[in-house]
Amino acid sequence: MDSSSSLDSLHHIAISVQNIAEAAEWYRETFRCEITYQDATWAMLKFGNVSLALVLPEQHPPHIGFVTPAAHKYGTLKRHRDGTESIYISDPSGNVVELMSPESCGQA
Amino acid sequence: MDSSSSLDSLHHIAISVQNIAEAAEWYRETFRCEITYQDATWAMLKFGNVSLALVLPEQHPPHIGFVTPAAHKYGTLKRHRDGTESIYISDPSGNVVELMSPESCGQA
Repeated sequence: MDSSSSLDSLHHIAISVQNIAEAAEWYRETFRCEITYQDATWAMLKFGNVSLALVLPEQHPPHIGFVTPAAHKYGTLKRHRDGTESIYISDPSGNVVELMSPESCGQA
Repeated sequence: MDSSSSLDSLHHIAISVQNIAEAAEWYRETFRCEITYQDATWAMLKFGNVSLALVLPEQHPPHIGFVTPAAHKYGTLKRHRDGTESIYISDPSGNVVELMSPESCGQA
């Protein structure tokens, strides 16, 4: 991910699965990817260009995390345990979109 | 996207929206991205590291398109109008996953 790019980038995509361990194993067997975090409630899988988060529907909404310098325009960013800072908004169709600050993602 | 990477990459993420024109305009205004294709039934938006497809729920299922040399293992690939070749499968939770051959994506 090139911070000098003129285009914003995607940090991760989060999809709902019924069982984190089962899903993480399926993605690891199906693709060349690395499990960078896993517990009973969510997992993060690293792919070549972007990460895939597996979440339980009752814990997190499915969403797409974008890295954009405009994140601050939408309100006060919340700091997460991994150090990233973001705010959640919805697109006109109700899809949940996470806006992450480049500085907090090491892309400043 | 580095074809020599040891990790598979994501080609696109397709999400459902209610109105293609409205959604494309919202994403273009919210992010630094380029609309590379748009008609009344779907649109493709290019971001720095991956593309975002906007689709109508009755036309295409939401899905994630992965580029993987293992695509061929899952059956006969279908050739699409843009030249890519892929097969659709589902993960254990029913999420639709498109497996695209690297050769057809210019990543061989």
